[in-house]
Amino acid sequence: MNRFGIRMSNQNQSEGYMIKVGIYGASGYTGQECLRLLLRHSGVEVVAITSRRYAGLPIADVYPVFAGLTSLAFMNAAPHEVAREADVIFLALPHSESMKVAPIFWESGKKVIDLSADFRLRDVDVYESWYGRHVSSQLVPQTVYGIPELYREEVAKTRFVANPGCYPTSIILGSAPALKNGLIDTTSVIVDSKSGTSGAGREPAVGSLFCEVNEGFKAYKVCNHRHTPEIEQELSRLAGQEIRVSFTPHLLPLDRGILSTIYATLTRDITGKEVTELYRNYYEGERFVRICQPGSFPNVAFVRGSNYCDIGVAVDARTQRLIVVSAIDNLVKGAAGQAIQNMNIFCGFPEHEGLEMIALFP
Amino acid sequence: MNRFGIRMSNQNQSEGYMIKVGIYGASGYTGQECLRLLLRHSGVEVVAITSRRYAGLPIADVYPVFAGLTSLAFMNAAPHEVAREADVIFLALPHSESMKVAPIFWESGKKVIDLSADFRLRDVDVYESWYGRHVSSQLVPQTVYGIPELYREEVAKTRFVANPGCYPTSIILGSAPALKNGLIDTTSVIVDSKSGTSGAGREPAVGSLFCEVNEGFKAYKVCNHRHTPEIEQELSRLAGQEIRVSFTPHLLPLDRGILSTIYATLTRDITGKEVTELYRNYYEGERFVRICQPGSFPNVAFVRGSNYCDIGVAVDARTQRLIVVSAIDNLVKGAAGQAIQNMNIFCGFPEHEGLEMIALFP
Amino acid sequence: MNRFGIRMSNQNQSEGYMIKVGIYGASGYTGQECLRLLLRHSGVEVVAITSRRYAGLPIADVYPVFAGLTSLAFMNAAPHEVAREADVIFLALPHSESMKVAPIFWESGKKVIDLSADFRLRDVDVYESWYGRHVSSQLVPQTVYGIPELYREEVAKTRFVANPGCYPTSIILGSAPALKNGLIDTTSVIVDSKSGTSGAGREPAVGSLFCEVNEGFKAYKVCNHRHTPEIEQELSRLAGQEIRVSFTPHLLPLDRGILSTIYATLTRDITGKEVTELYRNYYEGERFVRICQPGSFPNVAFVRGSNYCDIGVAVDARTQRLIVVSAIDNLVKGAAGQAIQNMNIFCGFPEHEGLEMIALFP
Amino acid sequence: MNRFGIRMSNQNQSEGYMIKVGIYGASGYTGQECLRLLLRHSGVEVVAITSRRYAGLPIADVYPVFAGLTSLAFMNAAPHEVAREADVIFLALPHSESMKVAPIFWESGKKVIDLSADFRLRDVDVYESWYGRHVSSQLVPQTVYGIPELYREEVAKTRFVANPGCYPTSIILGSAPALKNGLIDTTSVIVDSKSGTSGAGREPAVGSLFCEVNEGFKAYKVCNHRHTPEIEQELSRLAGQEIRVSFTPHLLPLDRGILSTIYATLTRDITGKEVTELYRNYYEGERFVRICQPGSFPNVAFVRGSNYCDIGVAVDARTQRLIVVSAIDNLVKGAAGQAIQNMNIFCGFPEHEGLEMIALFP
Repeated sequence: MNRFGIRMSNQNQSEGYMIKVGIYGASGYTGQECLRLLLRHSGVEVVAITSRRYAGLPIADVYPVFAGLTSLAFMNAAPHEVAREADVIFLALPHSESMKVAPIFWESGKKVIDLSADFRLRDVDVYESWYGRHVSSQLVPQTVYGIPELYREEVAKTRFVANPGCYPTSIILGSAPALKNGLIDTTSVIVDSKSGTSGAGREPAVGSLFCEVNEGFKAYKVCNHRHTPEIEQELSRLAGQEIRVSFTPHLLPLDRGILSTIYATLTRDITGKEVTELYRNYYEGERFVRICQPGSFPNVAFVRGSNYCDIGVAVDARTQRLIVVSAIDNLVKGAAGQAIQNMNIFCGFPEHEGLEMIALFP
Repeated sequence: MNRFGIRMSNQNQSEGYMIKVGIYGASGYTGQECLRLLLRHSGVEVVAITSRRYAGLPIADVYPVFAGLTSLAFMNAAPHEVAREADVIFLALPHSESMKVAPIFWESGKKVIDLSADFRLRDVDVYESWYGRHVSSQLVPQTVYGIPELYREEVAKTRFVANPGCYPTSIILGSAPALKNGLIDTTSVIVDSKSGTSGAGREPAVGSLFCEVNEGFKAYKVCNHRHTPEIEQELSRLAGQEIRVSFTPHLLPLDRGILSTIYATLTRDITGKEVTELYRNYYEGERFVRICQPGSFPNVAFVRGSNYCDIGVAVDARTQRLIVVSAIDNLVKGAAGQAIQNMNIFCGFPEHEGLEMIALFP
Repeated sequence: MNRFGIRMSNQNQSEGYMIKVGIYGASGYTGQECLRLLLRHSGVEVVAITSRRYAGLPIADVYPVFAGLTSLAFMNAAPHEVAREADVIFLALPHSESMKVAPIFWESGKKVIDLSADFRLRDVDVYESWYGRHVSSQLVPQTVYGIPELYREEVAKTRFVANPGCYPTSIILGSAPALKNGLIDTTSVIVDSKSGTSGAGREPAVGSLFCEVNEGFKAYKVCNHRHTPEIEQELSRLAGQEIRVSFTPHLLPLDRGILSTIYATLTRDITGKEVTELYRNYYEGERFVRICQPGSFPNVAFVRGSNYCDIGVAVDARTQRLIVVSAIDNLVKGAAGQAIQNMNIFCGFPEHEGLEMIALFP
Repeated sequence: MNRFGIRMSNQNQSEGYMIKVGIYGASGYTGQECLRLLLRHSGVEVVAITSRRYAGLPIADVYPVFAGLTSLAFMNAAPHEVAREADVIFLALPHSESMKVAPIFWESGKKVIDLSADFRLRDVDVYESWYGRHVSSQLVPQTVYGIPELYREEVAKTRFVANPGCYPTSIILGSAPALKNGLIDTTSVIVDSKSGTSGAGREPAVGSLFCEVNEGFKAYKVCNHRHTPEIEQELSRLAGQEIRVSFTPHLLPLDRGILSTIYATLTRDITGKEVTELYRNYYEGERFVRICQPGSFPNVAFVRGSNYCDIGVAVDARTQRLIVVSAIDNLVKGAAGQAIQNMNIFCGFPEHEGLEMIALFP
């Protein structure tokens, strides 16, 4: 029993010291996904999950998948209380909420992984033009944008990770090899993304009702989705020059998955096979990126529940364009899984610990 | 009772002469959709539906939606037999089958609407490079590409309509106003399309199984889908110059609907509101094209079961691109509905007769 | 233009007098379905649709399926205002709201069809034990329970129809022939029903979110669903004796459809073929009830968007039980379609007017 | 490298001896699910997967979820070849295929888990009346019906497990406590089951196409589903007397999950709370059975991808009936998971080894 009265019976307790984790804001799909994965991580113990709405309720009452697996209950705990108990804090709050509590965790000296958008943008002005006022901008320089495949070393050294957005993760991983190799005209990038509905979260809203989403498909927030500046920041960083993209998100009538189709004009003659090779080389040794055979393309169904990013590439010889298709599970590689991957890095666990799920198909 | 032994009890028989219609190849989703709509058309009588596989079976045994509504049974009839009975023939056969029988119907002097791809491409060489040998190329010059909103007068004069493909319909209607007004750089057109699964037809195949499609989403036939030359032919015709497009189809886990997102670089400064206005003017008086309010975009759910093409436009001022989103029901405006619209035109019915369905939502 | 400023341009205005219809509470799925069907009814004109929440908004802004089809806008009108304009009022309010306004419509002398549960139960005490206090119980004796197939004559004479619930409609039609013929032991009736999600309405609630319903299936309100007394009242009436049933509703991950599987012990030896015959005889001449061939059973997909109730029967010779499977579209035969069928009867239209939709498949 | 040329790189190879497993007939959904789970089992090594159709193809080409995870390829190997390599053989063949090869594996002295129906029925005559001739009936007495919660000791001693059917698993676990405690009238059992589409397997058939299943729901094989005798055999065994049930399966438009609703007349007065208690006691210590709180009921979404059977009970006091709702993932507890649970028992692993997946939600 810890001070929160929680018996940790369902944790894989090995003999050594277990890293203590708190999930601050654990009642949404992302928070519960963090817990789902952390309960099967051999080196951590979840000591606190918080929620104002569900305070006092066992999480198994809200998410019955946890029945018999954990006796954890939601607490309405203040940040400093959680900081006292935990070594690592996952912030799974909505944007603009996260920045309010982040400084308390930071100052406690604990490690933080923020799954909101609040610390992803390096330029506070840009943040404020898309999201509104930033109340903790002093922390921004302390944070590392946590895509392990690109910034593993920085992640290893930080104790504050800004965990990337779901759309950006699929797009950054899908375009990094092309950008790093100068393969595409940086003024020509168009991204057409499609996301499953879990990306909309668990807040009740007419637009997220089953009957409004099912058997439907639409573009939304055309030309003004808030992930645009994050995508541009990171693609620019990879290209070493300012990049603007046209980014159009669409809503898929399925639970999990993002598929991004990326179009850009090639800067030189190259075959699809050669691009595949180039992508393979770029991601060599990366456990969570899989490059499809030439002529094959990913399906969100084949990454469902897993931490993989599957990427397929093609050269449209008729128009001299590169087409990249990139698929992730938005709740795993696009959120909770990547967060744990980051945690593994800065806590010294094997990077794949707790993340070896094989996609659930069908 | 006609000579096929079919009692036409479920037809709306008004006093005047009823146009007699035969559906050649009626057992697929497109064929049955033609029948579904024609049974509610006040001016026609369906006199024959054919199928080799289901010959002898009442269509209500294969598609129970027709129970109590028609006693029509599939026949394994030769083309000339159907031609003798019918004034208008809908060919709902797979491509390369259609061209084998089309000449018989043509020579019978009857009116023909071909829903396959066989007579859509003006250039037989192009056809053959994508589909294989064309055995009835002599007929190609006789046919009219049947998008009523663009070629109403030609349709009125022909007696052989090549009914457009589903993807092309959504893309042509979505880009015509921009191309006709010189609004976009014709070298910059990228089309990202998403189709419901009924587009794959009713042939049993692993890839079309529920468990393979459901909760999945993928790109397919990247850079080599057979609708590409049809799209290019028609966009080129609208632009008055050769156009090549990057066209990427994707498979949606839903029954009906195509949504195409079209990207192109603007040739001049213009606002989204102005583009909306321009689209509204272009389609003024068109009953089956609806232009969304500025800032609104279509959803395939809002055209399901209807003959509408809904179009939304946006200007991405940051990248100077036009983004058009276009939605149809692939089985209606993308196939059977448009075929009946063409029939109405060349038979002298009001163009909307039998096509006034309001989309079924939810 | 009428006094509400609504131009009725989209109505099929024939020369004769058009019955004027108001939909009181038109913003839910049931209300919009009434409008969808009424707009295609040749003898009526919809003069008012009300909604507090959306007052002032064109319905096409809330339900884009209506774009280009009607200029009707939601009004926040008092009952007497609507009563003044309309000849027939559809009440599509939640239960306990309906009974508050029903007396005003009743006293206005206009015809009323109430789609809520408020006037379905003959015994006010029973109503109050399941729903809470009834504030208009004086009206209960004036109303007719509107299942046309059973009570057509009563409907023809009333001017207040209590439109049946969706589950009850499927169950009553599915068991009437068996009960009327004394075929089953009335103490043995078990009903296992499954409903699509549109039955839960359009109120935002966590339990109705896409991600909560999709890929899920559950029983709910086991032993205490409010449709139980309505089912029992009507089955008892058919049997001529008190019947208690076990009724278990389940939630299906699809938009439209109710399928009820009804089990009861047979009182005599009979074959499935004979029961089929008996059901066919019972519903002879009924346009909206279809009895499946022996060995065939209904699918909610085959009634989607239509006013049909499809019924299949089987005799389980091993256990001497009758099994009846009954399918409807909960929004059509289970709500709006049946309401219009009732209107047609008491207004003197052909009973099928405006209800000849063929189910949308796939 | 083993003799099949397969490098076992993706296995969790601990130091001790790894049990060698072959999956005979691994190309269906059940076979691949076995592999998915076995690859994450710490004590086994999969040495062979067979398929005639896909012989020579890496399984990752057929099921891309395995990309990067295993280099296993399908072999067209004879039974004795697989028997030579493997210690345990999973037979994931269709019924009537399994019995042809089972004797070879049996005689090899290896351990066998048969996932088909061929060895589940104790009475060969009953088998033959439902399935056709049994060519290996001599083996039937050697096999143990493998529901660990009921027959753990027998499983521990056998080397041939007949792995239960998916429907029967949900029904047997759902009714065992009631039957064992004489709680219900054994002549009154009615089972209404609903299964996800993966239960239909991966053979291409019109009835399993996405567009035929999606947005649909139907009963099928009413009164004649082949799982009926298996259900009756096992319920009779539990009750100690002959039981006949009415069993009606239905097809759900979702991938995974079976939910069975079981109705029976109570033999004595008892409350829902007391029945819950009785069920809890019966399954005390069982890791994979979870009894819901009184008033709560399972949802297939909450067991998806896991080995749990969730059970909720209610007493319908108005009709003196017990209602039990039982949910499993048909591919896990209903097939591959239960098979591995049986393997764990007869191989001496902890029973939950490799089966600790938390359900994937949403």
